[in-house]
Amino acid sequence: MPFDWKTVDWDNGRVRMIDQTRLPETVEWLALETVEEVARAIEIMQVRGAPAIGATAALGMALCASQSKASDSRSLLEDLSRARDRLARTRPTAVNLFWALERMQAAAQKLAGRFVPEIRQGLLNEALAVLDEDVQANRRMGRSGGALIPDGATVLTHCNAGALATVGYGTALGVIRGAAEAGKRIRVLADETRPRLQGMKLTAWELHQDGIQVTIISDNMSGSLMRQGKIDCAVVGADRIAANGDTANKIGTYTVAVLCREHGIPFYVAAPLSTIDWSLESGDQIPIEERDSREVTHIGDTRIAPEGVPALNPSFDVTPAALVTALITERGVVHRPDRDALKVLLER
Amino acid sequence: MPFDWKTVDWDNGRVRMIDQTRLPETVEWLALETVEEVARAIEIMQVRGAPAIGATAALGMALCASQSKASDSRSLLEDLSRARDRLARTRPTAVNLFWALERMQAAAQKLAGRFVPEIRQGLLNEALAVLDEDVQANRRMGRSGGALIPDGATVLTHCNAGALATVGYGTALGVIRGAAEAGKRIRVLADETRPRLQGMKLTAWELHQDGIQVTIISDNMSGSLMRQGKIDCAVVGADRIAANGDTANKIGTYTVAVLCREHGIPFYVAAPLSTIDWSLESGDQIPIEERDSREVTHIGDTRIAPEGVPALNPSFDVTPAALVTALITERGVVHRPDRDALKVLLER
Repeated sequence: MPFDWKTVDWDNGRVRMIDQTRLPETVEWLALETVEEVARAIEIMQVRGAPAIGATAALGMALCASQSKASDSRSLLEDLSRARDRLARTRPTAVNLFWALERMQAAAQKLAGRFVPEIRQGLLNEALAVLDEDVQANRRMGRSGGALIPDGATVLTHCNAGALATVGYGTALGVIRGAAEAGKRIRVLADETRPRLQGMKLTAWELHQDGIQVTIISDNMSGSLMRQGKIDCAVVGADRIAANGDTANKIGTYTVAVLCREHGIPFYVAAPLSTIDWSLESGDQIPIEERDSREVTHIGDTRIAPEGVPALNPSFDVTPAALVTALITERGVVHRPDRDALKVLLER
Repeated sequence: MPFDWKTVDWDNGRVRMIDQTRLPETVEWLALETVEEVARAIEIMQVRGAPAIGATAALGMALCASQSKASDSRSLLEDLSRARDRLARTRPTAVNLFWALERMQAAAQKLAGRFVPEIRQGLLNEALAVLDEDVQANRRMGRSGGALIPDGATVLTHCNAGALATVGYGTALGVIRGAAEAGKRIRVLADETRPRLQGMKLTAWELHQDGIQVTIISDNMSGSLMRQGKIDCAVVGADRIAANGDTANKIGTYTVAVLCREHGIPFYVAAPLSTIDWSLESGDQIPIEERDSREVTHIGDTRIAPEGVPALNPSFDVTPAALVTALITERGVVHRPDRDALKVLLER
């Protein structure tokens, strides 16, 4: 399995990441040198996927500390606060971004009053811990979630919740990798995931690299394939999960969940605990990013839609918890997730 | 309403049609001079949409008669039989193709033994009758179906069942036009309809030309919009309807129907009686065309999918009759279509 590299990492004072807007044609690594560069990379989706965005934001904070010209703790914390604000303005839906920023800020607060080099090192250590924990969490999800996938199964996934959406290994694709590593024969159907085609361009690419059998379908094919009995389960990632288990994920996920229930097919969500927003009662409160409609109407700079016709482009939708067969986390599997079942996770 | 032109027509010994593969960028009219050219135009989807394919096939038979060098009725009928076989091999799912070919062949049989010029004229008259009846049928569907659409409604449609899919006016878009002509304020959401984007490129284009408000969405957005109460009904066309009301239409239609039922939204199918295949007991028997996977993995000649990864490309799916709120035909509206309800149509 070649995905032992990290999608985002710290590299000698810079933030190193694979440019996901160039895949699958070109594998290009970026070396980002400023917080603004990191923020832009998140905005234009050179890095995307909730856990990867969180890890990148953590690295952005470490980068700020590393570069700050502050000579005392107080000035450094002010610089960090500005970096936090900038990074928080990049994308609204993935809660891992805010979770990582809060964690980095808490670490900075804890170090307040220390010498600047100590704070720098402390924040770098914290960011690297975020990265390490992400991969560990994904591998745990892979083991426990992989056990849910039957040998010989055809598994539908939507968008990319893979190594590329995390620091490594993946959430939904981690579950698929976990099943494959357990020796099961798995076939994956990758929804292409319009408008940005992360399923076609990222999921299909990374699974193909891994030697896992993958076939691309357009987003409107899964219903008919389910009706024909050709899909055994679906597994997706999440961008934010409310306290009641309602799950925001890439636009189209809700439709997959409805289709799964219609056909009696298990629908699994794989996400680390950092994706759960305990402050939100339900999914209705999750802010949904509306991106530029050019993502729908254009390919590159070429308009493919008729002139003068508008398009909608909500990036995410909300799947009610009632449609989720099980939530796969690094603390184990929660069947039929709801408020009470999720709370149990905190006590594990 | 500018759509008073015909998508396909007879033009001084040639078959004239708009090249739908060039839309919306370029409005180019083709003048086809041989049966082979007509067959190729159907295969490569320069003309598409079940009723338009049927009309084109009828014109192809008239073209054959017009060009045949046969000096007697028997040789001419042999030429027509060969033309029929060629045209029947173009696309498998739309039954209107076979319906039109049978109608033309029946007309030829009736004229067997007459002088060649008489048969030629008879077949041209028959083809022109197919064209006229198509537009008349669509206008009738527009009146009766349009009455089902509430004033102020947001109507979802999938693929293109418009003027471009017929000789003129459209089936599903005929219903929308009928509602608009009745003075109702209608807003249309056009599924882009991957992989060939007929919704984005054809439906949005022709409705925009008509001055009907239209917004493009990707195929994976309608579920979430329905959940938010933003869609009032859906109306689609059909490529073949079995005797029990099961309906084959563009891939993704089944998913729209499932989503409509999940949200209590009416799901309407608009199609002329020539779309009903009385010989098939159920939709399971409808042949589904599998097209080149390059339609999914490529844009033009450029591969957008990772090298080495395959894709599926079934062009159609089957929606069980139980999901159809009403079938709109030129003989009126059939609510909750099933075998008995459809039979009544034959007696009207």
